[in-house]
Amino acid sequence: MHGTDRRPEAIPAFAGSRIDRVDHVRTNPDLLAASFADPAARLLLLDGLEPVERDGHLVLEPLAPDARVDDHVLLGIDPAERPIFARLVTDLGPGLLPTARSRSIADLVPADEVALYGTARSLVHWHARHRFCSVCGAGTVPVKAGWSRKCGDCGAEHFPRTDPVVIMLAEHRGRVLMGRQHGWPEGRYSALAGFVEPGETIEEAVAREMFEEAGVLVHSVRYVMSQPWPFPSSLMIACIAQADDDTLTLDATEIDHAFWCDAQGVRAALAEEEGAPFIAPPPMAVARHLLAHWLADVAPADASA
Amino acid sequence: MHGTDRRPEAIPAFAGSRIDRVDHVRTNPDLLAASFADPAARLLLLDGLEPVERDGHLVLEPLAPDARVDDHVLLGIDPAERPIFARLVTDLGPGLLPTARSRSIADLVPADEVALYGTARSLVHWHARHRFCSVCGAGTVPVKAGWSRKCGDCGAEHFPRTDPVVIMLAEHRGRVLMGRQHGWPEGRYSALAGFVEPGETIEEAVAREMFEEAGVLVHSVRYVMSQPWPFPSSLMIACIAQADDDTLTLDATEIDHAFWCDAQGVRAALAEEEGAPFIAPPPMAVARHLLAHWLADVAPADASA
Repeated sequence: MHGTDRRPEAIPAFAGSRIDRVDHVRTNPDLLAASFADPAARLLLLDGLEPVERDGHLVLEPLAPDARVDDHVLLGIDPAERPIFARLVTDLGPGLLPTARSRSIADLVPADEVALYGTARSLVHWHARHRFCSVCGAGTVPVKAGWSRKCGDCGAEHFPRTDPVVIMLAEHRGRVLMGRQHGWPEGRYSALAGFVEPGETIEEAVAREMFEEAGVLVHSVRYVMSQPWPFPSSLMIACIAQADDDTLTLDATEIDHAFWCDAQGVRAALAEEEGAPFIAPPPMAVARHLLAHWLADVAPADASA
Repeated sequence: MHGTDRRPEAIPAFAGSRIDRVDHVRTNPDLLAASFADPAARLLLLDGLEPVERDGHLVLEPLAPDARVDDHVLLGIDPAERPIFARLVTDLGPGLLPTARSRSIADLVPADEVALYGTARSLVHWHARHRFCSVCGAGTVPVKAGWSRKCGDCGAEHFPRTDPVVIMLAEHRGRVLMGRQHGWPEGRYSALAGFVEPGETIEEAVAREMFEEAGVLVHSVRYVMSQPWPFPSSLMIACIAQADDDTLTLDATEIDHAFWCDAQGVRAALAEEEGAPFIAPPPMAVARHLLAHWLADVAPADASA
């Protein structure tokens, strides 16, 4: 609701939420009960973890008459002043990995609904995988409108995870490093990426991952943008860093191939031109926006995403 | 080891690690065993979660003859080519909250040792609080040199948490918003902060927290720097955002008081001048560096941290 990017067409998928997360309602049982009893309240329908779309929108239904608030997470209040809930499930079924349906949702519904779906997916997934206390092994129950879980035995409180991931371009004399993992569609290349670990800054994580995966030493890391990525619950932190040397030493277990690509090649890839040196990541991926950002910086006149 | 900041005096505490995390050793049992058997290998001594300092350095000891690799986490290889381990514990005792000792370690040992301690503290804490599987409640055991835990029953793999937190200054006509929480030392003010939630970008989290805690709508969020914060395992993401209006509506449960402070006031606070409008956060806090960064931007000539 209070997003800061004023160019919604420029934001990556799953960003651009217009929901008010109403933290004060989560922690107030009376306000929460009133929201759940509100005739305007709606359930965001999910099929396991998959989105359900109809006529270009996510499906929102009235809450069932026998629904219990404790089985739901309050996602927030939408721009139409409707409290929006998602139902918690105990069994995710086989659907832990994103399907074509969840990956294509960004093409089917407006950006703020994509963001709503992403939030719901991350939370429903987290609850289903945290039914037991990691401290003592006893059962946990949802509290605070589904924004945490509490152990019924030792009392430990557990909060939803958000795992920071760095995704970055190394830049060297007007070219950027494009890499591909094993098993990706033929020709597809993207920015390198990896989880931020305890005890390191974003900048240190960028440098470590770039060295581990490609043998490239980088410095002068520049933050570009971020994206929530609900598979299951990452925060993608997109950066550009400077390399002093273009020698590659690839980690063969992680990286299938990598190469330095100039602005012309990146532009051709983003424009999906025939003969482009690689197939760019799809618009839902922050890596595509990162490439467009880099291109706009190095060749402003011709930039396109 | 591959950190990018070339002005170590300018980095916040717990950043500046010089350890090589050797991901390829973690996942290779033979290389891990060789590291553990290396006569140069050292144990980073901890007292519960607290640091142990002697003569201006952390205490590193040879591994005990009967030590088992499975009871340790491999922090990495230090600049002297020594594999550095920390011992996992099952009982943290009462010491979950940082004491004066852990908070003062940044004044006692070199920056890279502070970073090493922070990494160890986060990991030892995480292991002790994740002895059971959150999916099924069965016991878990450390794997991958202590960089994950695996459930002995359902096989789920669990990774150390790193919780992104936004910490930010709102800026309005040459002034920034300083706030204090209940119970802080008298006169102490800092930047506002809060956890990034699933489904939001860094920029959206900044805007949400600023609106929740102070009623201030912000836009044009600018990333400044980041810091690992090992109490227990956060990634502090420091930003500056623009406010169009300086009206405050404080969340009384979170915020005791807040006010807009001009550059002169911030400069006086950082210089610890008598009559300064507030007491600045200590050098170990990224908030102090954020204030110094803002000051250097708005009044370059007089900036000081």
